[in-house]
Amino acid sequence: MTQPIRVTVWGEYRHELRDENVARIYPDGMHTTIADGIRENLGDRATIRTATLDEPEHGLTEEVLAETDVLTWWGHMAHGEVSDDVVERVHRHVLSGMGLVVLHSGHWSKIFQKLMGTTCTLRWRSEQDRELVWTVNPTHPIARGIPHPIDIPAQEMYGEFFDIPAPDELVFVSSFSGGEVFRSGCTFRRGHGKIFFFSPGDQDYPVYHHPDVRRVIANGVEWSVSDLPERAYPTLLRYDTDEFFHGVDYSQAAPDITPASMTTTAGVTA
Amino acid sequence: MTQPIRVTVWGEYRHELRDENVARIYPDGMHTTIADGIRENLGDRATIRTATLDEPEHGLTEEVLAETDVLTWWGHMAHGEVSDDVVERVHRHVLSGMGLVVLHSGHWSKIFQKLMGTTCTLRWRSEQDRELVWTVNPTHPIARGIPHPIDIPAQEMYGEFFDIPAPDELVFVSSFSGGEVFRSGCTFRRGHGKIFFFSPGDQDYPVYHHPDVRRVIANGVEWSVSDLPERAYPTLLRYDTDEFFHGVDYSQAAPDITPASMTTTAGVTA
Amino acid sequence: MTQPIRVTVWGEYRHELRDENVARIYPDGMHTTIADGIRENLGDRATIRTATLDEPEHGLTEEVLAETDVLTWWGHMAHGEVSDDVVERVHRHVLSGMGLVVLHSGHWSKIFQKLMGTTCTLRWRSEQDRELVWTVNPTHPIARGIPHPIDIPAQEMYGEFFDIPAPDELVFVSSFSGGEVFRSGCTFRRGHGKIFFFSPGDQDYPVYHHPDVRRVIANGVEWSVSDLPERAYPTLLRYDTDEFFHGVDYSQAAPDITPASMTTTAGVTA
Amino acid sequence: MTQPIRVTVWGEYRHELRDENVARIYPDGMHTTIADGIRENLGDRATIRTATLDEPEHGLTEEVLAETDVLTWWGHMAHGEVSDDVVERVHRHVLSGMGLVVLHSGHWSKIFQKLMGTTCTLRWRSEQDRELVWTVNPTHPIARGIPHPIDIPAQEMYGEFFDIPAPDELVFVSSFSGGEVFRSGCTFRRGHGKIFFFSPGDQDYPVYHHPDVRRVIANGVEWSVSDLPERAYPTLLRYDTDEFFHGVDYSQAAPDITPASMTTTAGVTA
Repeated sequence: MTQPIRVTVWGEYRHELRDENVARIYPDGMHTTIADGIRENLGDRATIRTATLDEPEHGLTEEVLAETDVLTWWGHMAHGEVSDDVVERVHRHVLSGMGLVVLHSGHWSKIFQKLMGTTCTLRWRSEQDRELVWTVNPTHPIARGIPHPIDIPAQEMYGEFFDIPAPDELVFVSSFSGGEVFRSGCTFRRGHGKIFFFSPGDQDYPVYHHPDVRRVIANGVEWSVSDLPERAYPTLLRYDTDEFFHGVDYSQAAPDITPASMTTTAGVTA
Repeated sequence: MTQPIRVTVWGEYRHELRDENVARIYPDGMHTTIADGIRENLGDRATIRTATLDEPEHGLTEEVLAETDVLTWWGHMAHGEVSDDVVERVHRHVLSGMGLVVLHSGHWSKIFQKLMGTTCTLRWRSEQDRELVWTVNPTHPIARGIPHPIDIPAQEMYGEFFDIPAPDELVFVSSFSGGEVFRSGCTFRRGHGKIFFFSPGDQDYPVYHHPDVRRVIANGVEWSVSDLPERAYPTLLRYDTDEFFHGVDYSQAAPDITPASMTTTAGVTA
Repeated sequence: MTQPIRVTVWGEYRHELRDENVARIYPDGMHTTIADGIRENLGDRATIRTATLDEPEHGLTEEVLAETDVLTWWGHMAHGEVSDDVVERVHRHVLSGMGLVVLHSGHWSKIFQKLMGTTCTLRWRSEQDRELVWTVNPTHPIARGIPHPIDIPAQEMYGEFFDIPAPDELVFVSSFSGGEVFRSGCTFRRGHGKIFFFSPGDQDYPVYHHPDVRRVIANGVEWSVSDLPERAYPTLLRYDTDEFFHGVDYSQAAPDITPASMTTTAGVTA
Repeated sequence: MTQPIRVTVWGEYRHELRDENVARIYPDGMHTTIADGIRENLGDRATIRTATLDEPEHGLTEEVLAETDVLTWWGHMAHGEVSDDVVERVHRHVLSGMGLVVLHSGHWSKIFQKLMGTTCTLRWRSEQDRELVWTVNPTHPIARGIPHPIDIPAQEMYGEFFDIPAPDELVFVSSFSGGEVFRSGCTFRRGHGKIFFFSPGDQDYPVYHHPDVRRVIANGVEWSVSDLPERAYPTLLRYDTDEFFHGVDYSQAAPDITPASMTTTAGVTA
């Protein structure tokens, strides 16, 4: 409780180096702006580092993830360049208890698709729509202190059908001036990890400078911290009758079981 | 409505050929017994075929899946031998609208893990526990005509924590004589597909001869039929302002987007 | 399955007799138009009667409810005139397995409040907003055959926060031209009864003549039919050890228990 | 955050004065033991008072409730004696943001029935069953620090079907030595209030002395504290176009609307 939350803000950091308009809005990179917004809201309650696609291992080494309580994810034009090994590593950490906050176009990232099991597709349009973000779950901690609605003057439109599993909790629903709606704030629990998806945010609009958007992201970071004392990957174990607390891992030894996990990326790594 | 449901019952079909005990319980293969149970309950409302691991493409070619309204899945000792290409194909069909009924040890199959996004691990023990299956959602169609509880005299124990996403609907919860509990009947919607997981059933016990278990599986088959008129994979499309019905697929063409789907199996295939 | 669904369409039937504008849109009463819409879609699959506030017992006698598979409810200006006894009776029938489809301003009816346990309040405005109804659960039977979105040219605005429990299933979300959003299609299970709330529809706009709205209501009627073989009110029963199927009702006899139900309307009637 | 949680522990306090066995287990009343358990776990993070049935207004005056962040409720033999006015008052405070933790036989209290909208009935037997409480949602704050399972050597059996709405979050599922199962830890959000139901606990067994049970109740108290800055009853308001933040209450003034709330207890009190 008294330890600050260790946050890693991950950014693709490509548009900012290539597109003049984006560089003007986010001169130090979107990840820096997102990190500033979290810092602004959480102060001493968080320590924040950033990582980007073009660092070795995208800046997401085993060491970095082991020291990360909550990872935030923004990517857009280069989802396909994220290495499958790193995706596997992030996935394992989330299922073991690392929090994950997925932002905007991160909906189409490999890690979000892998955690959701669906395509995570949607309808879109980038034509300066006004987005209004309405709270439908006012007692949720992520909605704490958020105006109803949040008013974002110009935004990319994201509309339904959004191909995700029904969220565990629906917190925000957005409308756009073109008439579309979107489930813009959703929580999911996967394994021992808590996941928050929040759709406002784009490289072409100054959304990550919006104080309410920053507040929501900071709330999402706080909410997604695990209550488990340590990271633990869910494991298949055999328990004797009357023995509830100490299980045995026979899955590797058993001569007649080849678990899916032994040949696919979904399983336990050695 | 008047067309019969086209069901494909998939079975691993290895234990039956190798283990005397299993061969005695399921002399024609577990898939045959499962198919019989569906036929017994649905009669003319279903046409049923079977497919097994050692057939070419595991019997699950594009043609077979295209003609399958609901696929049932039982596997155990050879999850790892199921080809990733076939898993990909089944995943695409489920997201496009094919129903999927996952049985017992199928919890650890590649396809279930891929759809859930989690490890799908649990606790287990095969020591002749008695399993009682209680209905917690009595208005659910899958519970229609099912005694409360179902009494299974001898069974493998599957216990919590079962690492799955919170189900959309929890229909059954089981207890075991050793004291464990398990969320044994769960529904999920993914993409345009409906998924039912039902845990009773094992190669070492005659569970698929149990009339109530057969009835649940048949109910699950009926429930998981899609209401969509045709199979459709969810796709990312751009919609102009005031144009709600005709979207355009820019994802392949856009010079500045490399979607995750272009390099991973989660995406749209050409 | 082959028996037609017995539907009772309940209408307040006051605006139509008092307000010229409403009488022009619904010359035979809104209940008649709603009934026509169900008939148009279900044909022989339903037999439909209507009942209105000013009939004796509001037309909802014990006999009528006992012969009703699904009740639809529209009220607005006279919620307070609905007798508590009739509300109690409808509540008991819903918990015993009668389906209920609550329409538009029925959100503020006594019966809906009683089933939800909340205020069921919302924000509103009647200024000719355009309402677009988007499907967020495309595999739900209530969404079958419904365009995405439904386009309603002029409507009363209903906006969030809508004070209801989180729905079991969220099927539709609406936007309004003023920018508000609303969870406009929601399902709930209560006791042995299935409930569908659908918000489009108003006395001042011809919404119940809209073919897509009529289709949704008809789908909702079909969905909310119980799968239970007969109506049964959930009851508190004692079960001996090893006796799972025959319980005993000690609640009335026990000298040391005064159940809430003995003095309130929520309990078992003799 | 730094303010301690103001908890009111409500107890029926009748069995303890009448039944020798209960008096022996809970010599100072069950409410005192429950309060001790919360104090033991939350320490300075909570200030705790108690209230009982036979105090004026059951100890739950407007003043007490206004100063209560979380109310815990245990009742059994005298549910029917709780005044409807007090139930109404508690209901209003819960919908306005007061947390509520309902314990064991409180499942059949008027306040829980009113909030759920259902009968809240179940199956039961008091024959020294062993209860095992399993965590099915390990990332939920209420499960923090709780062993998996909690082992309660002797308990009253509560079994399914438990007639409640599907919980927002299912945290615990119990088994009993007789083979029954029960959804023993459930959360619900109603209005602006958070509700936690936890079934272990009985007058005839020393369950409220069990350290793990005490920990769960304390966790539940912490979880159910509202994040809203002040208590606010959800209200029906009209909003002009382009006016999102200031609504007007026309419900009392409008000549053509008699809201349900004007004649029933569910509505806004003046």
